[in-house]
Amino acid sequence: MFIAETKIRVRYGETDKMGYCYYGNYPAYYEQARSDAFRNTGCSYKSIEDAGFMMPVLSLNIEYKKPAFYDDLLTIKVIVKKKPSIRMEFFYETYNQKGELLNHGSTMLCFVNARTGRPSLPPEVFRNAIDSFFETEE
Amino acid sequence: MFIAETKIRVRYGETDKMGYCYYGNYPAYYEQARSDAFRNTGCSYKSIEDAGFMMPVLSLNIEYKKPAFYDDLLTIKVIVKKKPSIRMEFFYETYNQKGELLNHGSTMLCFVNARTGRPSLPPEVFRNAIDSFFETEE
Amino acid sequence: MFIAETKIRVRYGETDKMGYCYYGNYPAYYEQARSDAFRNTGCSYKSIEDAGFMMPVLSLNIEYKKPAFYDDLLTIKVIVKKKPSIRMEFFYETYNQKGELLNHGSTMLCFVNARTGRPSLPPEVFRNAIDSFFETEE
Amino acid sequence: MFIAETKIRVRYGETDKMGYCYYGNYPAYYEQARSDAFRNTGCSYKSIEDAGFMMPVLSLNIEYKKPAFYDDLLTIKVIVKKKPSIRMEFFYETYNQKGELLNHGSTMLCFVNARTGRPSLPPEVFRNAIDSFFETEE
Repeated sequence: MFIAETKIRVRYGETDKMGYCYYGNYPAYYEQARSDAFRNTGCSYKSIEDAGFMMPVLSLNIEYKKPAFYDDLLTIKVIVKKKPSIRMEFFYETYNQKGELLNHGSTMLCFVNARTGRPSLPPEVFRNAIDSFFETEE
Repeated sequence: MFIAETKIRVRYGETDKMGYCYYGNYPAYYEQARSDAFRNTGCSYKSIEDAGFMMPVLSLNIEYKKPAFYDDLLTIKVIVKKKPSIRMEFFYETYNQKGELLNHGSTMLCFVNARTGRPSLPPEVFRNAIDSFFETEE
Repeated sequence: MFIAETKIRVRYGETDKMGYCYYGNYPAYYEQARSDAFRNTGCSYKSIEDAGFMMPVLSLNIEYKKPAFYDDLLTIKVIVKKKPSIRMEFFYETYNQKGELLNHGSTMLCFVNARTGRPSLPPEVFRNAIDSFFETEE
Repeated sequence: MFIAETKIRVRYGETDKMGYCYYGNYPAYYEQARSDAFRNTGCSYKSIEDAGFMMPVLSLNIEYKKPAFYDDLLTIKVIVKKKPSIRMEFFYETYNQKGELLNHGSTMLCFVNARTGRPSLPPEVFRNAIDSFFETEE
């Protein structure tokens, strides 16, 4: 299992006329948390792309419990439960500064060889980085 | 059943470095389609808010099949299968100009009385507008 | 002189907690209007990119007079006063459905050869398309 | 004079198909930097709104020198040169992690009494916070 956390402060332009952080911002927040999670493994998402891979999103699910507001300092927790293969699933939990769970969700991504456009196992640089987090489970 | 369609052209700033329309844009696209769908019933979402109601999103699901690209002229099809009560569920299908299905998804929304902040039946103005689409099914 | 117009409806997620269309949306609105303007010349921006050119933005200026609101149907007027050379300047005016001027602005763009990364004259396909609009002035 | 700095990491969805951070993101970046600058004075922008004031943007100017890329860690420097009155002008400089100046700009904002909708002097809570930064100049 791999767990990481990211702090995101809600921008003014990310609120809507209800005064809430717009529901459509969370996919970008989740992505930022995902990107920071990759960096924490020692293999940034950028270096995955530099190795000739892309990771399109196959599916997205979000359950909204409570809204966030302007200037809230959110914590996005990212959890990878299963060792990544061609597919890699991420779970997310968003908390506000009071520790309230605002929403949770998941995304399924897939490794794609950028040259061939075909699904692929993860690049070696990433497998070396991520495998240590799942070693004890095997 | 209620069905509506909206055309959305992919903006340059909505693409990402993969060259795809960013996966995080679709919640806003779905919302625009939803907003146009309300207008088509004869009761705009704005007039629902003016009647003292809000409609927060409770959940979002998207399955991505193919990417959209800059300048693509997308058709978002919105389908409401069940007569709305306190909750209202929307289904979405996104097609490009070649008629290819790019993604499909759903959102569950809920009517909330803006004054009390509590879940509520839809305002009368909306029930009058939407009921005719579901008459034959009752 | 070349003039074009685009209609843009303000999305819910484009409003902010003041209830206004967020000031930071207009660069994207201007871009959409610019993109439609290119299409109207008979040479889309996409075909300029396909011809191996990019058009980065060098500067942006906006004067905000009045806010737009959710669901407003805006008209963005694009004006090119001077025949494009390496640089191309666009002027914009945003009106709401009541015909009120909400803001006006300008952007300076530049043609860049995507292969060399260097500023360049516009591609021939675009010069052929745009020149007719400026013929009488020469 | 008042100076503050904010770090912003470029999100994937903020890039465009050129691979650049989209030019239309900077108004939101500037806003985030502005918001952090207010917090640094000891009077957050949120507390200005809570005191019954709004600060609409009157004008925006940006000069783009170089692009930012995905995952770049930007530093936005905010400078207030003149003691705020009814109007308040902010200057911005964006640097990447190599210290290169990517763009600079300015925004003019105005204090508005949210109840009357009329321009106004800043709330006392903000004047107390900001005045100390300009004391020596008077």
